[in-house]
Formats: sequence, structure tokens, C-alpha cells
Amino acid sequence: MEFELTPAIEILKRTPATLNSLLRDLPQPWLVQNEGPETWSPYDVIGHLVHGEETDWIPRAKIILEHGETRAFVPFDRVAMFEESEGKSITELLDTFAQLRAENLRELQALNLTSDLLNKRGRHPELGVVTLRQLLSTWVGHDLGHIRQVVRAMSKQYRDAVGPWRAYLSILEE
Amino acid sequence: MEFELTPAIEILKRTPATLNSLLRDLPQPWLVQNEGPETWSPYDVIGHLVHGEETDWIPRAKIILEHGETRAFVPFDRVAMFEESEGKSITELLDTFAQLRAENLRELQALNLTSDLLNKRGRHPELGVVTLRQLLSTWVGHDLGHIRQVVRAMSKQYRDAVGPWRAYLSILEE
Repeated sequence: MEFELTPAIEILKRTPATLNSLLRDLPQPWLVQNEGPETWSPYDVIGHLVHGEETDWIPRAKIILEHGETRAFVPFDRVAMFEESEGKSITELLDTFAQLRAENLRELQALNLTSDLLNKRGRHPELGVVTLRQLLSTWVGHDLGHIRQVVRAMSKQYRDAVGPWRAYLSILEE
Repeated sequence: MEFELTPAIEILKRTPATLNSLLRDLPQPWLVQNEGPETWSPYDVIGHLVHGEETDWIPRAKIILEHGETRAFVPFDRVAMFEESEGKSITELLDTFAQLRAENLRELQALNLTSDLLNKRGRHPELGVVTLRQLLSTWVGHDLGHIRQVVRAMSKQYRDAVGPWRAYLSILEE
């Protein structure tokens, strides 16, 4: 599938509701257990998504539009949430994420991106030359990847509880 | 995590809303594209979940409660949806799933399952002896596995669109 702005926004605007449906008011053990050392719990993931709204997608889109390839993006801190989320409830993080996402989609619409602008090039500090179209496609893929991660972390809590059915549930082994 | 009825129901009752948030009114290409030969689209998955509500979880729970290990479950047809979903819109399937899930959770509550009843054994036609507790844990794991599958199928539509970021998005390679 080629990236097009309207269907991509359709996905981006749904992510807060999807995460609310999955996580809001869930009993705590579902929220804070991760998949083992160096992995993230659903709570960690929401903090990471909040940090992305603040520093990644729209700020990078603006760098591309204003500076093209001449200025590399500020590197994204993948683990900033371990400090930033401290003391915050999952409800607070979900609310912040929903609010920031709505604001960022308004900003995105206000950029009035044409096909030419979407093809504009920027510079990723590690990956090199990328286009605005690729950045926005990645925003969508990143959302879906982290929804998948939340669901996988939850399912693994039942790895033993399912007994012999473990043989049929590939998600438990990922 | 040990299986407990109340937190498990918390997950089971959320799945229709999660799938609605992900899929309802999405542009058609997101719904019907799968991950390649012998894989399922989001549309296929919802039909499969409908069939599970009709023939798998509660019917099997009742077989365990009524017949214990003396009667094996009827084998579950994993691909029944390829015929059963024919001619139905995704909206219709999502509505049917939500309605059947709500009915099944009412039936589950009405069974008044005690810890002793949850430990009752039944017979799976392939896996052999299983408990009611394991069956209900699997219902939860099966939901989460198929949410994961829907999200993965959607994300793969952008496998090429993300350009160099493909290196960072492990969901595109699963």
C-alpha cells in the first residue's frame, strides 16, 4: 500500500481509543508486568508514546519542511518514559496521550501537505536521507507496533494458565 | 499470573470495543489485505472470532460441566468463516461479534463458577485432558492473539512505505 494522508490519519486518530479500550481501569497486574528483562510493560509503552507525541513526529515533520536535508533530526530518546512517567497513573498517561495526539493531528492537517511536500527530504541522524512521507508512514507503523506489544505483554501473563493450549497460541512464544 | 475469573472477564468484555476502534469504518484496503498466502485479513479474523463465540468457548465450558472427561469437545473449525462470512460487511461482523460476546459473558456469569468447578476436567479432541480454567484462560489468550494479528496485518501494508525506518519496526518483519 502506498502512503496516503487521509487513510493514515484514520489510523493515527484511532490509537488513543484503542489503547483506552485495552487498558483503562484494568486491574494493575495487567498494566505493569513486562515480558522479561529489558522489555516494556503496557504502562511503559504509553509513556513512550507520550514522549513520541512531544518530541518525535510533528517536530521532525517541521524540521523537514523548514530545513530539508540540511538539519538532522534531534535523536529520539526511546527510554525517556522511565523518568518522565514517574508518579503518573496509567489514566493520566492515557489522557495525556489522547490530548497530544489530537493536537498533533490538528497540526498535521494545518500543514496542508501536498504530494510534493510529502516527497520532501530530511535527514535522520542514523538512517540518513528520509522523506516526510516515510516519516508519517512510520508514525502509523510505530502506533501499530506498540499496540501489538501491549497485547503481547498482556497475553504472556497467561503463558502457564492456558495449559496444553500453549501449543496453539503462537503469541505466547513470541 | 494465575487465572482468575474477574480479571479475565475484564479482558474478554473489552475485545469488541478494541476491534471496533481498530476497524470500524476504516477504508477497505486496511480491512481486506492479508499477510500473504494462507494468512488472514482483519475481515477474516472477525469472522473467525464470531465462529468461536458460536461454537467454541461457552459450548465447551458446558461440555466440561456436564460431561467432564467422558465426552471430547466437538473439533473447532478454524476456517469456517471463509464460508460463513460470505456477503457480510465488516460492520455486520463486528456487531454480531459484540452481541454474541455480551451474551456469552452473561452465560459465563450465570454459571457461578467456583474454584472447584474451574478445576473440573474435560477432554480436548487433540490435546487430551484440560481444565475449565485452562479453557477460559485460552479464551483470553485467543482474543489477544487475534488482536495482535489484526494489527500486524494492517502494519504490513506499510512495509515499503516506511522506507529506511523498516530497520527499526520489528512488527513489519514478523
